[in-house]
Amino acid sequence: MNLERSERAEVLIEALPYIRRFADQIVVVKYGGNALAGTSDDDALAHFAQDVVLMRLVGLKPVVVHGGGPQISELMDRLGKTAEFRNGLRVTDSETVDIARMVLIGQVNPQIVAAMNVHGRYAVGVSGEDAGLIRAVARDPELGFVGDVADVNPAILTRLLDDEFIPVVATIGTDENGQAYNINADTVAGAIAEALDAEKLVYLTDIEGLRRKVDDPSSLIRQTTPDELDGLMADGTIAGGMIPKVESCVHAVRQGVRRAHILDGRIPHVLLLELFTDAGIGTMVEVPS
Amino acid sequence: MNLERSERAEVLIEALPYIRRFADQIVVVKYGGNALAGTSDDDALAHFAQDVVLMRLVGLKPVVVHGGGPQISELMDRLGKTAEFRNGLRVTDSETVDIARMVLIGQVNPQIVAAMNVHGRYAVGVSGEDAGLIRAVARDPELGFVGDVADVNPAILTRLLDDEFIPVVATIGTDENGQAYNINADTVAGAIAEALDAEKLVYLTDIEGLRRKVDDPSSLIRQTTPDELDGLMADGTIAGGMIPKVESCVHAVRQGVRRAHILDGRIPHVLLLELFTDAGIGTMVEVPS
Amino acid sequence: MNLERSERAEVLIEALPYIRRFADQIVVVKYGGNALAGTSDDDALAHFAQDVVLMRLVGLKPVVVHGGGPQISELMDRLGKTAEFRNGLRVTDSETVDIARMVLIGQVNPQIVAAMNVHGRYAVGVSGEDAGLIRAVARDPELGFVGDVADVNPAILTRLLDDEFIPVVATIGTDENGQAYNINADTVAGAIAEALDAEKLVYLTDIEGLRRKVDDPSSLIRQTTPDELDGLMADGTIAGGMIPKVESCVHAVRQGVRRAHILDGRIPHVLLLELFTDAGIGTMVEVPS
Amino acid sequence: MNLERSERAEVLIEALPYIRRFADQIVVVKYGGNALAGTSDDDALAHFAQDVVLMRLVGLKPVVVHGGGPQISELMDRLGKTAEFRNGLRVTDSETVDIARMVLIGQVNPQIVAAMNVHGRYAVGVSGEDAGLIRAVARDPELGFVGDVADVNPAILTRLLDDEFIPVVATIGTDENGQAYNINADTVAGAIAEALDAEKLVYLTDIEGLRRKVDDPSSLIRQTTPDELDGLMADGTIAGGMIPKVESCVHAVRQGVRRAHILDGRIPHVLLLELFTDAGIGTMVEVPS
Amino acid sequence: MNLERSERAEVLIEALPYIRRFADQIVVVKYGGNALAGTSDDDALAHFAQDVVLMRLVGLKPVVVHGGGPQISELMDRLGKTAEFRNGLRVTDSETVDIARMVLIGQVNPQIVAAMNVHGRYAVGVSGEDAGLIRAVARDPELGFVGDVADVNPAILTRLLDDEFIPVVATIGTDENGQAYNINADTVAGAIAEALDAEKLVYLTDIEGLRRKVDDPSSLIRQTTPDELDGLMADGTIAGGMIPKVESCVHAVRQGVRRAHILDGRIPHVLLLELFTDAGIGTMVEVPS
Amino acid sequence: MNLERSERAEVLIEALPYIRRFADQIVVVKYGGNALAGTSDDDALAHFAQDVVLMRLVGLKPVVVHGGGPQISELMDRLGKTAEFRNGLRVTDSETVDIARMVLIGQVNPQIVAAMNVHGRYAVGVSGEDAGLIRAVARDPELGFVGDVADVNPAILTRLLDDEFIPVVATIGTDENGQAYNINADTVAGAIAEALDAEKLVYLTDIEGLRRKVDDPSSLIRQTTPDELDGLMADGTIAGGMIPKVESCVHAVRQGVRRAHILDGRIPHVLLLELFTDAGIGTMVEVPS
Repeated sequence: MNLERSERAEVLIEALPYIRRFADQIVVVKYGGNALAGTSDDDALAHFAQDVVLMRLVGLKPVVVHGGGPQISELMDRLGKTAEFRNGLRVTDSETVDIARMVLIGQVNPQIVAAMNVHGRYAVGVSGEDAGLIRAVARDPELGFVGDVADVNPAILTRLLDDEFIPVVATIGTDENGQAYNINADTVAGAIAEALDAEKLVYLTDIEGLRRKVDDPSSLIRQTTPDELDGLMADGTIAGGMIPKVESCVHAVRQGVRRAHILDGRIPHVLLLELFTDAGIGTMVEVPS
Repeated sequence: MNLERSERAEVLIEALPYIRRFADQIVVVKYGGNALAGTSDDDALAHFAQDVVLMRLVGLKPVVVHGGGPQISELMDRLGKTAEFRNGLRVTDSETVDIARMVLIGQVNPQIVAAMNVHGRYAVGVSGEDAGLIRAVARDPELGFVGDVADVNPAILTRLLDDEFIPVVATIGTDENGQAYNINADTVAGAIAEALDAEKLVYLTDIEGLRRKVDDPSSLIRQTTPDELDGLMADGTIAGGMIPKVESCVHAVRQGVRRAHILDGRIPHVLLLELFTDAGIGTMVEVPS
Repeated sequence: MNLERSERAEVLIEALPYIRRFADQIVVVKYGGNALAGTSDDDALAHFAQDVVLMRLVGLKPVVVHGGGPQISELMDRLGKTAEFRNGLRVTDSETVDIARMVLIGQVNPQIVAAMNVHGRYAVGVSGEDAGLIRAVARDPELGFVGDVADVNPAILTRLLDDEFIPVVATIGTDENGQAYNINADTVAGAIAEALDAEKLVYLTDIEGLRRKVDDPSSLIRQTTPDELDGLMADGTIAGGMIPKVESCVHAVRQGVRRAHILDGRIPHVLLLELFTDAGIGTMVEVPS
Repeated sequence: MNLERSERAEVLIEALPYIRRFADQIVVVKYGGNALAGTSDDDALAHFAQDVVLMRLVGLKPVVVHGGGPQISELMDRLGKTAEFRNGLRVTDSETVDIARMVLIGQVNPQIVAAMNVHGRYAVGVSGEDAGLIRAVARDPELGFVGDVADVNPAILTRLLDDEFIPVVATIGTDENGQAYNINADTVAGAIAEALDAEKLVYLTDIEGLRRKVDDPSSLIRQTTPDELDGLMADGTIAGGMIPKVESCVHAVRQGVRRAHILDGRIPHVLLLELFTDAGIGTMVEVPS
Repeated sequence: MNLERSERAEVLIEALPYIRRFADQIVVVKYGGNALAGTSDDDALAHFAQDVVLMRLVGLKPVVVHGGGPQISELMDRLGKTAEFRNGLRVTDSETVDIARMVLIGQVNPQIVAAMNVHGRYAVGVSGEDAGLIRAVARDPELGFVGDVADVNPAILTRLLDDEFIPVVATIGTDENGQAYNINADTVAGAIAEALDAEKLVYLTDIEGLRRKVDDPSSLIRQTTPDELDGLMADGTIAGGMIPKVESCVHAVRQGVRRAHILDGRIPHVLLLELFTDAGIGTMVEVPS
Repeated sequence: MNLERSERAEVLIEALPYIRRFADQIVVVKYGGNALAGTSDDDALAHFAQDVVLMRLVGLKPVVVHGGGPQISELMDRLGKTAEFRNGLRVTDSETVDIARMVLIGQVNPQIVAAMNVHGRYAVGVSGEDAGLIRAVARDPELGFVGDVADVNPAILTRLLDDEFIPVVATIGTDENGQAYNINADTVAGAIAEALDAEKLVYLTDIEGLRRKVDDPSSLIRQTTPDELDGLMADGTIAGGMIPKVESCVHAVRQGVRRAHILDGRIPHVLLLELFTDAGIGTMVEVPS
């Protein structure tokens, strides 16, 4: 790269005050299972891991939350187990939740942890069962062990952050009898951001950002409010898999998280660019002051 | 139970000084995968979990280390994968180590964590990959990803213990490139006890204790030294699966662990009895002073 | 004692949660001068001292308060001084209060301190004069230097407890001119429990507990409330020397002490049994929640 | 008093650097039982108490050690007990040591404590039995319970000083079985000064200071060394009751106490004058540098 | 000086409680530029420096504030710059304020600092520009850079006091653009005393104290209130250069400074005499309680 | 500036590990008086001030040391004082050192402090007289008050750095009698870097860096050692005003300062570029490892 000194200085002068401002701030990043499922994603995971480690290096407190839907489906296939869906949600019997647990905690989570720890001793895998992090309730008896978040006890995350570790959270929760539930990772990310009183909640997605008109790329939303997003969900502009993300953003900023972001995870180092440059990237949600 | 007051008082008077003495002491307990694999073991796991939580309640710092051989074999079977052995050790190719990782971290570990956490928010699952806890080296290229312990960095355990959590360790380690290895859990337990400068290293087994003569129950060893155990291994009295346990005991007490114990895990609440009563249980190893 | 392992385990499982619960809690124990005056009491004092030291060993913060009426009378006899009584209370002239002070601080107190310190360097004798612990006011000019508690400044006790000592309190107080007064030890125990915001206030007596009907042993009160005790004092069921104890219990639990107990000091190790077993012993007073 | 401003300023300018220099320094003061036994001593005790409280007010850490021989004799008389002496030392049977304990701990000690506490909540009475402060050994079986100092464990004093209390020490010690011994207070004062690594050890006496020639007032020793004092004891110039004081001074300064002083306790406020003015008072002992 | 021991003791007994009472208390002392401008003032500065160092030695926290009018005039003369006055205030153009800054920060301040530091490493020069200590606003556009105190941020003083340094403050402030202003030192002293919640605000002047009648020395005011001083300023009894001092005293004690003093700086060691003796010196202002 | 996202990311990825590495590290920067003397230097001072504040924002601990030769000469001129030189060094009589003190402490120092404090409350002016920072000795009696550094007591700097202030040091020192001396600022910067055990010592100059051949720009030295520099000074390649800088670099890195740098202060933001980019700038001196 052949940048001029003055250009480099400019980037630094822009970045340093952000570094100061975000020192000791908690940023919860939802990293999608999709990003890990493909074959070409090694670089993406490596870039993501590098960004999170750099955030931590300069004093932020990142928390990573991940799902793993494609990987669960794959192991079910290999074990000859047929998935059943009801209203788009997978019916999760006892065996299925055990498989989900095994995949999320025992496969996807260590993969992310390992990608970070080639840079040092930073990442620690955590499941919602550890130290009672996530208490779950059944969403619907017909769906079996599909859970909603009943309660988040963030003590284990707080301690790990105080000790300068990077927690990587697998989204299995338990009810009071110790029964495991599989919970939507977008929802968990929002609940954790609220419980930690995070500065930022960031969703890394495969879209450029939210749009005001579905088919109009020029209608990309740079900055918005919970109220506008309520409207866009009500009129169907925002729909499908974006709903849990957007609902979590709306809820989180109303509960005290300073800002929520829908970022395009396909842009290399999008986390660093969002955090440390003036340029707007993706969609930012904030309660108007 | 109809104990007399005087009998209850006697037990208490015996126990309280041990509680004082063990306050803030670290006790590393190896809990076998066998104990979890059978059908009738629910009670055993529940008793074990209760004991460990009680130890923690009165101020000890327990660390649990577990394996999971039978459970790994079972998932391999279900996935149609044939195990290959060389000199009694399983050849572990890349897929096999991924299965081992999934089973140990994603199945056995959460099962133990959940059994403890019905009593509160105590247990936290940890793998050897977290925060670089266990660095592994290949034992033998022909065996694939079967690892030996190259180094233990106990920072994550120390922090969790300081924060009054109970770490439950799955024995997957990584080399410097982030490649996972499966490591013998008996060996890991000893290495962790040494790295933590533990007061005690305890193996819960399915034997009454070590014997001086293989076939003579009356030759049960109550108390012994590293030197005597070296002899019993040299002359073949101690052999087979007991070797990693006994070698770890010998190494650990020579490296500063105060006492190592081979206990009969079939005795209900054997941990409490060993810790808090005068009665000798199983075999105790100590460097003669 | 030939208890089964399972019986010992049962006692421990019962006791350990209490140990946790009482950690760092303050327990004020009133120990009677009678208990020390007889000839056969050496064992009783030794048992009592052992119990208090064990309480301290497992993290409780015991405070012992004692009187010494019989010992005061004995020295007065030896010095040829005749006791005069008015309404059952000893008229206490200047010489008498000097004798009381000498006996309580210089004879009874060191005897208790010494019994504890054969187990280690735990006990520290304290009088109400030290660091202004107890400020006294005259109860009745005609009685001379018989005092009531005007004020408790617990700083010296708090510091000694923080430093893990066991304070043993002789119940001499002073007015603002430094004049000594003899104060009822039952009353002082209650006032100290209140000032320290104690978890428990315990009276070791020579009765089994309070009764609802004076002559009916089967009417022993296991658990009661301040209101019921007010009634039993009003109708004369509770009378005589029990009044200062019961009044102190009633006042203390209303002022925030969690529980007050009237225990039978003749039962060996009654303190340990009350604290660390489920079995009800003596009478327990608590504000209904 | 009609001092000029300049004279007052001069005293202050002289005193303030001493106050700085002695801040947080420990000064052990031996206060004689004689001083308390007479009838006209009320003022002397009041002045002494005021001086010690003022020392504490400006940041020094005073420790008072006292005896009480005359008071012990008086109570023995009243109890019709005849004193027996051997080589000038009182034979101390079990009853005698109980009387000594009662008098020192229960009479003299509270009298000094009370005199200080009219100024605030400063003084705390301590006996050698508290928290194992003084362990005693018998001096000579024929003398009974006359003890020598075997060991000083100053933990209780250190804690009280850290908490800004003024410890007042009665010189009863115990052997390992809890048996009380009466110990020479001059000796105890020296042993405590050593154990506390005191800045100063001060004996308040009824002489002007030590002399180089017994009968020559002009031979008053202002400043001396342990070696010179060894000589004066060897040749008999120093003899009798001064021996334990001088021996303690010699031992203490050789063991690290910075300075020892023999002061004339009859001079009002002699402690303040010694500490905070340039004028030499009494005899000062120091290891030559 | 040939004071009797009893006289010395009396001074000490009087002084020691004040030393206790003022420990860790902040005393802001305004030291006039006049005092430094003359030729015979070397002794005065040396005495003042000694007093302030002694105050600090015994635990007070002195802050010195100084002006330097005569010295500013002198340098202006040497640079051939004519002073212009309007309503008795010097018109301060850009060059004049640079001269004032140079003199106050670079000449007067180091002179005071050096006088103290011959006694040790105590004093640290501070200007109102350091760490944003004093923010200034223009008093009147016609006067140029003559400032009033807009805001005091005492962080730098608090830190220096916590670190046991003696801050010596030159009274240059800055507006938000970094422009320097010259501010009346009497006013700054009061504002700093308020911002530090000082115990005392002391003006060292060249008068004996305030008077109730201008020409009547016998009307010297020993003790007064803000209300009385308001009256004396309203009726012209207090006028001229005393106005900023008296206004600052009145404002400061109303804002929480405990006492303000107008002292005669010509009395040697007047600071020590005021602080540590009972004798009244100069005029003391206090809100009636 | 129209940098690509990937370019910005690249700069950040390069910079963040440096930020981590330099966290809490002390960097001593010598800023020349020349830089302030010219007319066009307002921007240069503003850039420099911004860089130092940014360094502090991201956790470094910068210390600025400055001289002011041209400004001293200018005031001497205005005061009609003729400079006399001997061997190239200004003869400094008492009046001259007073002028130097006034200029450095009262003019140049506040100018730098003010430039930083437009960004916040960061900078604090310090002279070598404050808290005894720099003790000076006369270099040569014939030169008058030209000093060498006898001793640096960095306590005041350490405290200010701990409190997150930026110290700006004027290089006036004092001897033990409080006499001021003017000291070469290059030398002071090195001595302070050593006393603070700094990570870096940086000289901002008006040359590109050191050269191996005086007239050959291509011989610019990127990286060198103390030994090589000793040679270049010995053979005259390095001469004149660079000598104190280079000697200080050599001495400092030999005394434990990690790296010393000669940078071209004319490059905007050269401090940021040196610290946070991989590109080599100017000349770096390091002891070979």
